[in-house]
Amino acid sequence: MKATIVMPADAPALKVANTRASGAEVVLYDRVKDSREEIGLGIAKKTGATVVPPYDHPWILTGQGTAGLEIVEQAKAAGVTLDAVAAPCSGGGLSTGIALAVKGLSPSTSVHAGEPAGFDDLARSLATGTKQKNDKLSGSICDALLAPTPGDVTFPLALQLLGPGLVVTDEEVLDAMETAFREYKLVVEPGGAVTLAAALTGKLPVKGRAVAVVCSGGNVDHATFIRALSRRST
Amino acid sequence: MKATIVMPADAPALKVANTRASGAEVVLYDRVKDSREEIGLGIAKKTGATVVPPYDHPWILTGQGTAGLEIVEQAKAAGVTLDAVAAPCSGGGLSTGIALAVKGLSPSTSVHAGEPAGFDDLARSLATGTKQKNDKLSGSICDALLAPTPGDVTFPLALQLLGPGLVVTDEEVLDAMETAFREYKLVVEPGGAVTLAAALTGKLPVKGRAVAVVCSGGNVDHATFIRALSRRST
Repeated sequence: MKATIVMPADAPALKVANTRASGAEVVLYDRVKDSREEIGLGIAKKTGATVVPPYDHPWILTGQGTAGLEIVEQAKAAGVTLDAVAAPCSGGGLSTGIALAVKGLSPSTSVHAGEPAGFDDLARSLATGTKQKNDKLSGSICDALLAPTPGDVTFPLALQLLGPGLVVTDEEVLDAMETAFREYKLVVEPGGAVTLAAALTGKLPVKGRAVAVVCSGGNVDHATFIRALSRRST
Repeated sequence: MKATIVMPADAPALKVANTRASGAEVVLYDRVKDSREEIGLGIAKKTGATVVPPYDHPWILTGQGTAGLEIVEQAKAAGVTLDAVAAPCSGGGLSTGIALAVKGLSPSTSVHAGEPAGFDDLARSLATGTKQKNDKLSGSICDALLAPTPGDVTFPLALQLLGPGLVVTDEEVLDAMETAFREYKLVVEPGGAVTLAAALTGKLPVKGRAVAVVCSGGNVDHATFIRALSRRST
């Protein structure tokens, strides 16, 4: 079906190009000046399209949560009860969706959301019990994890289901991308590598524990991937 | 168990490092001056170890051929009868193993082996019906595909089972590695990308056909992967 994707103007060029190549119309907006929600609603009003929000809707988060179902099923098939599961977080759709699935099937497993330093609105919101905002709207290589504050649908669930947040620096994320290249032969985008970074740095303890981390998304520009690889030579 | 791996001195540094990190002893040899078979037999004689050849043994090729079983099963589950399957080839273990499995389950499917230009001993052997040798022992980025001639166990099977060989240049291989990065989010080593390169260049026709190519191996140095990514910018 015809699709219009509202995307920040500083999204990776590769993501914009691949979205257009898949046949969608891409409308770019300024993270600082524009509201993507208003732009989306305006387009829907004019064209009769249905708005599909990126995270703040029960169907979106439960759809993303199927990754949690798969993780628990695969752990069970391997005879493992997971101590912890962690997933990247922007507005919280993926992480709370996964938490819903994991806590439902495996209540003893803790679930954590990962965020880039400076954009840790959820970690601070969980710590204080009220929705916090980020100071900045841009400035991390984790371009997909820059939502300014937790969602209205996702935050009450996050408060109930998530353990303490995991916060990593861009440098730690680049190291995790290099590890994913070298050890797992996977191309992971910066925002997709935050919880792997948390595991590799020990911010998410893994020693002697059964831990699953979600690496979600591979929309990374050539230059950024080369930057990650250049941190280590062989 | 204790393992000693005999590996060419010009193998990717990453492959050597990962093999050592997995606990094996690595013995390096010169592709031009030394015989890896003799080195391996010498070690086995001295230590009582069992020699595991890289391709020229029925168990090796049938083990590698399980990839062919999976391809046919997955195609069947998707309701597809494959027109062609293609896999990389050095001594022919992977490609003839896959051919055994695919032709057994799906006789109408053609199976092809891919090789780097200048190291197309199997393609020329298939064309002439007798075992041919490569002129050179090194000189392609496809470091895993430089066996000088088809194996004694693999070649008779190759003659019965394989269609014409696919031969691609190093430049075409680098382009295929970039495509695998951009479209499939996979890290593929040069030798692992030869049949993807054949499909992308049309040397293996894909238009209107159901074709599976095997991308096998991700032991690629950072510098070589950066070289592949640098062929296209976003």
